[in-house]
Amino acid sequence: MIHAGIIGATGYTGVELLRILSGHPGVRVDVVTSDSEAGKPVADIFPSLRGVTDLVLTRHDDEAIRDCEVVFFATPNATAMHRAPELLSVGIRIIDLSADFRLKDAATWSHWYGEPHACPELLEQAVYGLPEINRSLIREASLVANPGCYPTSVILGLLPALLHGLIDSTGIIADAKSGVSGAGRKAALATQFSEAGESFSAYAVAGHRHHPEIFQALKSVHEGMEDFTFVPHLVPMVRGIHATLYARVSGDETVQTCYENHYADEPFVDVLPAGSHPDTKSVRGSNTCRIAVHQPENGRRLIVLSVIDNLVKGAAGQAVQNMNIMHGLAETTGLTRIALSP
Amino acid sequence: MIHAGIIGATGYTGVELLRILSGHPGVRVDVVTSDSEAGKPVADIFPSLRGVTDLVLTRHDDEAIRDCEVVFFATPNATAMHRAPELLSVGIRIIDLSADFRLKDAATWSHWYGEPHACPELLEQAVYGLPEINRSLIREASLVANPGCYPTSVILGLLPALLHGLIDSTGIIADAKSGVSGAGRKAALATQFSEAGESFSAYAVAGHRHHPEIFQALKSVHEGMEDFTFVPHLVPMVRGIHATLYARVSGDETVQTCYENHYADEPFVDVLPAGSHPDTKSVRGSNTCRIAVHQPENGRRLIVLSVIDNLVKGAAGQAVQNMNIMHGLAETTGLTRIALSP
Amino acid sequence: MIHAGIIGATGYTGVELLRILSGHPGVRVDVVTSDSEAGKPVADIFPSLRGVTDLVLTRHDDEAIRDCEVVFFATPNATAMHRAPELLSVGIRIIDLSADFRLKDAATWSHWYGEPHACPELLEQAVYGLPEINRSLIREASLVANPGCYPTSVILGLLPALLHGLIDSTGIIADAKSGVSGAGRKAALATQFSEAGESFSAYAVAGHRHHPEIFQALKSVHEGMEDFTFVPHLVPMVRGIHATLYARVSGDETVQTCYENHYADEPFVDVLPAGSHPDTKSVRGSNTCRIAVHQPENGRRLIVLSVIDNLVKGAAGQAVQNMNIMHGLAETTGLTRIALSP
Amino acid sequence: MIHAGIIGATGYTGVELLRILSGHPGVRVDVVTSDSEAGKPVADIFPSLRGVTDLVLTRHDDEAIRDCEVVFFATPNATAMHRAPELLSVGIRIIDLSADFRLKDAATWSHWYGEPHACPELLEQAVYGLPEINRSLIREASLVANPGCYPTSVILGLLPALLHGLIDSTGIIADAKSGVSGAGRKAALATQFSEAGESFSAYAVAGHRHHPEIFQALKSVHEGMEDFTFVPHLVPMVRGIHATLYARVSGDETVQTCYENHYADEPFVDVLPAGSHPDTKSVRGSNTCRIAVHQPENGRRLIVLSVIDNLVKGAAGQAVQNMNIMHGLAETTGLTRIALSP
Repeated sequence: MIHAGIIGATGYTGVELLRILSGHPGVRVDVVTSDSEAGKPVADIFPSLRGVTDLVLTRHDDEAIRDCEVVFFATPNATAMHRAPELLSVGIRIIDLSADFRLKDAATWSHWYGEPHACPELLEQAVYGLPEINRSLIREASLVANPGCYPTSVILGLLPALLHGLIDSTGIIADAKSGVSGAGRKAALATQFSEAGESFSAYAVAGHRHHPEIFQALKSVHEGMEDFTFVPHLVPMVRGIHATLYARVSGDETVQTCYENHYADEPFVDVLPAGSHPDTKSVRGSNTCRIAVHQPENGRRLIVLSVIDNLVKGAAGQAVQNMNIMHGLAETTGLTRIALSP
Repeated sequence: MIHAGIIGATGYTGVELLRILSGHPGVRVDVVTSDSEAGKPVADIFPSLRGVTDLVLTRHDDEAIRDCEVVFFATPNATAMHRAPELLSVGIRIIDLSADFRLKDAATWSHWYGEPHACPELLEQAVYGLPEINRSLIREASLVANPGCYPTSVILGLLPALLHGLIDSTGIIADAKSGVSGAGRKAALATQFSEAGESFSAYAVAGHRHHPEIFQALKSVHEGMEDFTFVPHLVPMVRGIHATLYARVSGDETVQTCYENHYADEPFVDVLPAGSHPDTKSVRGSNTCRIAVHQPENGRRLIVLSVIDNLVKGAAGQAVQNMNIMHGLAETTGLTRIALSP
Repeated sequence: MIHAGIIGATGYTGVELLRILSGHPGVRVDVVTSDSEAGKPVADIFPSLRGVTDLVLTRHDDEAIRDCEVVFFATPNATAMHRAPELLSVGIRIIDLSADFRLKDAATWSHWYGEPHACPELLEQAVYGLPEINRSLIREASLVANPGCYPTSVILGLLPALLHGLIDSTGIIADAKSGVSGAGRKAALATQFSEAGESFSAYAVAGHRHHPEIFQALKSVHEGMEDFTFVPHLVPMVRGIHATLYARVSGDETVQTCYENHYADEPFVDVLPAGSHPDTKSVRGSNTCRIAVHQPENGRRLIVLSVIDNLVKGAAGQAVQNMNIMHGLAETTGLTRIALSP
Repeated sequence: MIHAGIIGATGYTGVELLRILSGHPGVRVDVVTSDSEAGKPVADIFPSLRGVTDLVLTRHDDEAIRDCEVVFFATPNATAMHRAPELLSVGIRIIDLSADFRLKDAATWSHWYGEPHACPELLEQAVYGLPEINRSLIREASLVANPGCYPTSVILGLLPALLHGLIDSTGIIADAKSGVSGAGRKAALATQFSEAGESFSAYAVAGHRHHPEIFQALKSVHEGMEDFTFVPHLVPMVRGIHATLYARVSGDETVQTCYENHYADEPFVDVLPAGSHPDTKSVRGSNTCRIAVHQPENGRRLIVLSVIDNLVKGAAGQAVQNMNIMHGLAETTGLTRIALSP
């Protein structure tokens, strides 16, 4: 039984970790922390957890953290980086769901996150936790940077085509749409029901933090990657990401077959039959990414549709998948829940 | 042309007043204030008003307020009461969309709103601005307390039955459901899209501020009124209130006919044919209250369904209706917009 | 391993049964039928089941049904009653999720469902499958009538108060609100997104089929039950039922304590602390019913709030709970999924 | 006073025409038809019209149609083309909100709409009713083909850039998102609340009928137009279209300025300040198209965001705008309603 801790357990990724881990046969969550809610049973904050866990929130500096084998950071950005060195030094493995260790370049991180990085020396050793790219590195990693939600959907959607040289690596466009839970559990005007409900808009078109993250990952797959466009949008739904990806086919290989073959053994990537349109509902609550590829009129235009649940494969589910890999468990352990549909 | 001002123009009732008044042929809004956003064009905050108005927000103490003939308070509770005496003293008529002047008893107000009332001496002269009850008083009023959204739907739904003695005045129940915009335009966790979306719950069952307001109004109509129950619920939609009202029929008069006759000349109350189920969509954006009455199996149980748009007949529309009455205009002036459906 | 069949597997209760049973360690679904979609893999219709099941839909008269130990009917009303006698005669146990066997009186059934009952002789032996009332009868039953969604939420909400004589048994009101999936998976105008979205209304106020079902169950608990009012409403969300129940307290016992004690050992009923307001999100996807009781100002008015997921505790989850009881399994087997929140 | 008729008045564009025309000072609707609902008052079908109109639906062959000066077809596709010749022959002007006369090439029409065109000889004379392109032709037209909803948003978003040669005319992508009301008022499974709610997906990626319509219009503006990609998506909201348009800047002119200048005199196109993100809510219920242009990091990638209300500027509002132009009225007559926000 793996002893785990969750630092920052009162956000949506925190409660989602608890939901998933409560059904995981190989893990016991010993500590859940929240500076703002310390002292309260976590089930008081999330009634969905009543009867499931008796855990009481403690402060982030709870000493019990040091008895964990693995610690999940479900904290806002710029928190984990202040704590990671100490935990790593005592042999605790870290899975950080925030963005602190996702970028390899400290200056780039600084540019996008607005402050100096607290431990740039760890950036190199941190492993980007997308199992479909880095499975073997994850297995040995002490520090896993769990990918962002948009990046997961976009990278998985483009990976086979880029890796196998099926598309031009320049001019790729990712038009991505996310449910509102991606903004986290905090009071903000723009994500009020009356603001975000019955409306649709793009945001951060001038530049979004997930752009450099996606770019870095895709460039690691295909060095020629450049001139990449990413536009996020807010959808009036709670969960789900839909990425619509546009590229130009350069070879003659059948894209559909390439995708099916590439992902044939991946437990959490499902390539749909030709002509399909995945909807986010089909993955809600599950760790699955569903992908469909289209070439209208058999032309050079490739359109890839990629859907995930932003809180599962886009956050907590992928974190558990990484934990399974790190600890030598079957990768699907605790992650076999079927999507809630309708 | 009536010169009007709006104090607190950056909430939902404020922008709704601007939407309605911009199409009103007899009013010119000269001043709109907001302490937090002073200096900004109001259309910068509400893009829906782009091209409609050039008004720039000023501070609440803008002297130009004193040149208005009528001032709308679209402020949070406990604001208008600090400013009203001064404006009334220079002959300005006030329509207060907040709760400051709705209750006649200062101690009751204090109990529910958590602070002493700043000008209890004005409570008696303030007229409760529900035209269907107080039309003639409103005509002469200097200070109109615009009713709350729940009270408007509940009182209009019960008025004919109580007034004409058709029902027992004890044990009446109002089970009311509101869209989220009723909570106002402010960042709060409970009304985040991810919290309020795809969910339904009651709130404030132990006691809600609109209970004493409804009770006072109904008691003024029927002295025997007592033991009244009011339970509000939050609906995952932006606009609309649906009140389901339960009473016990005591007489033999036909309720349907009584309602139709009572409201025959009311421009903004529409009694539906027997057997109908009004939906909030049919009144969205309009100043109409639609009502249906049911007596299942012709029994003694009366069920009244009453719907309004909480921001129009439940707030800004009713305020303009009151303004029309106060200034001798046709009551429907500027209020003939049809509901937006679907 | 129990061999199970599902007749009518292409509605929402059908896919929900498959979702739940796929994670159930003691059951194997051998047959799923659909007359309209026979020949198709069920995962073609419900992409959420891709990778989970290879089952192919067959026609309702598939002989393989006769090799099942238990058969779930997830068919429209008036279907199961035509098939039940034959299956029962060969020793198959039936759990009917439709309304065919819920009412004891054939004439009443006929009145509400618009045709003669096909096998009235089975009505007496059919057991109403609400474990919290009929657990021991269910254990021995051959034919279980799985309760309706509204009835489950309303009966569980009133049961302790009625059983222990805490409330007047006359004049009780159930104001119930349901998500749209309660209407089933079929094309209809009233439940189109553009009709039901951003709107709220009551329906069937003159009389709803769940009224006699609730009334019969409550009367079996308390003979004096009469003059019961039930009003359903449609909420713009997919899943969830919220029942707001109004009664009058007649005794002096503390209602909160009574409810807590009564449900102390029930695995799927959670009585919240005094002052709580359960939301439907806290039970979405789970088999739990959460209940809160209120007596505003410690008066005689009792308000009970009861929430369930209409497709789980209100349909497929409860059916599996019944199956567990019938087959001597732990009652919670396969039903421990936590609600999906947010 | 213009005498108008509406053929097919029971769809969403029909009721929207009635909503808009009821507030139009220069038009009287004399006839509204519906073969399926003939004999019913239109307000019985759309309660939002109660108290607004007494019109009773008649059959499509109602002779009174021939006394109208202008007839709107709000019928399904392939209806207007069977009736248009007769009406035109007696001097009635036609505004067709369906797709029957939008494409110039009968074979192309046939390919996309699945049957031969009934009056190909009229295709040439029909004027594509986008005032921002064809204002002067519309003025003289007898037969106006009112544009589709997606085409309106996409064409207005690309028009200035194409016309003024700011972008490459090849490889343009339109990633468009629509509320569900775009699917019309009919019972269908895919647009049920429980299917479309809380979910997001693309559809018709292989080819959508609006592709040739957009392509034809843009090619008329810039002959070099080719290799155009259009992908529609379904958003869980009732009204609104958001088009995200991707092109490559070829010149050095400032795009922002070009757009502002191009649309400076257009009453219904609003170019937002640089850096803006229009949301569909800001145009809901209004005839406005709001546009923002972005060039991230001042690069060659142009991203245009364009929003409309699909039922207003994308259908009924634009039809009334066309009528105003055809009849010499001020173009904004009856179209000054402000968006309903929130």
